[in-house]
Amino acid sequence: MRLTLVIGLSFIVLLGILLRPGSAQNSAPTGETPHYTQDGKMEFPSGYREWIYLTSGLDMSYRKNMNMNHSMFDNVFVNPAAYQEFLKTGTWPDKTMLVLEGRVAGSNASINKAGHFQTTETMGYEVHVKDSRFPGGWAFFGFDDEKPAKMITTKADCYSCHQQHGAVDTTFVQFYPTLIKLAEQKGTLSEAYQKEEGKK
Amino acid sequence: MRLTLVIGLSFIVLLGILLRPGSAQNSAPTGETPHYTQDGKMEFPSGYREWIYLTSGLDMSYRKNMNMNHSMFDNVFVNPAAYQEFLKTGTWPDKTMLVLEGRVAGSNASINKAGHFQTTETMGYEVHVKDSRFPGGWAFFGFDDEKPAKMITTKADCYSCHQQHGAVDTTFVQFYPTLIKLAEQKGTLSEAYQKEEGKK
Repeated sequence: MRLTLVIGLSFIVLLGILLRPGSAQNSAPTGETPHYTQDGKMEFPSGYREWIYLTSGLDMSYRKNMNMNHSMFDNVFVNPAAYQEFLKTGTWPDKTMLVLEGRVAGSNASINKAGHFQTTETMGYEVHVKDSRFPGGWAFFGFDDEKPAKMITTKADCYSCHQQHGAVDTTFVQFYPTLIKLAEQKGTLSEAYQKEEGKK
Repeated sequence: MRLTLVIGLSFIVLLGILLRPGSAQNSAPTGETPHYTQDGKMEFPSGYREWIYLTSGLDMSYRKNMNMNHSMFDNVFVNPAAYQEFLKTGTWPDKTMLVLEGRVAGSNASINKAGHFQTTETMGYEVHVKDSRFPGGWAFFGFDDEKPAKMITTKADCYSCHQQHGAVDTTFVQFYPTLIKLAEQKGTLSEAYQKEEGKK
């Protein structure tokens, strides 16, 4: 009788933890690991807005005088398990997913009179995924919307640029303000980045 | 014997859930509810970067021609439990904490040639907290750093401005792109905001 009670109680506690509101974003069903269709497309990581936020940029460009006819924020999120691992090791584990969300910048609306805020209009997504299924360890997928997307060919500029300039393991940790110092402390900065920054 | 096994297994599962890396940011110890010192200051919500991200702005101002001698991003985060409740109801529960982080904007560093990115330098924080201990239900606290901060006097502009222009319950949900449509659907937009936007 006492044993039954203990079993019952431990299952209630278990259920309580599984069902508590805050934990939803950390469970597998919200797509925290990469999923692929049978023909190799990646499924859209629909829960990414509840992942860990890393940074935002506004109209960032790697070329001078790039002429854009719009103003856009980009927001970067990472799956929580990969983030926790980065805090421990200073680098990314297998199944890391970095999601770049493009979002139209607005100004002069509601009570805002200057500067830029983020609007409800998204402008596509790019996922940078670390997965041992890819020959180079990492792959890029570009999403126009939430439908499964094809992998971007490894000949594309994004691969070589990330390899040549990424501060940590082909990723632009130099733009992730809460992680770059940690990478420096853990000694995980890439050779290329250290040379570029005159640190080596 | 079989019962002992079941108890053992359920505790192992329980322990696994409690200890899994991703769940750390959702447990109480990281400061997801407001804590106050004995003299009424608020303790800094140190885990806020692992909360739910809502939006960023760049050099936003509610006054025209405001002259700032710097460029600054502001990032907004909310505690996960409040966010989950907002998804259900379209408004904020008691103990909601909205954290505004100011962060110096940079440009022309590493391979970035245009636009703005976020740097490692923060420029203070403002917490807007819903707590039944305050007469108006909400209070603002301004933090220069991570030390406990005094409540901002209710005579300050931020209170009247949020009351007069906040889209939902004195908060600027009009600048939280993933929540504003939801508030409209749930019918929680304030009278004042609806009039201002010509929706009423």
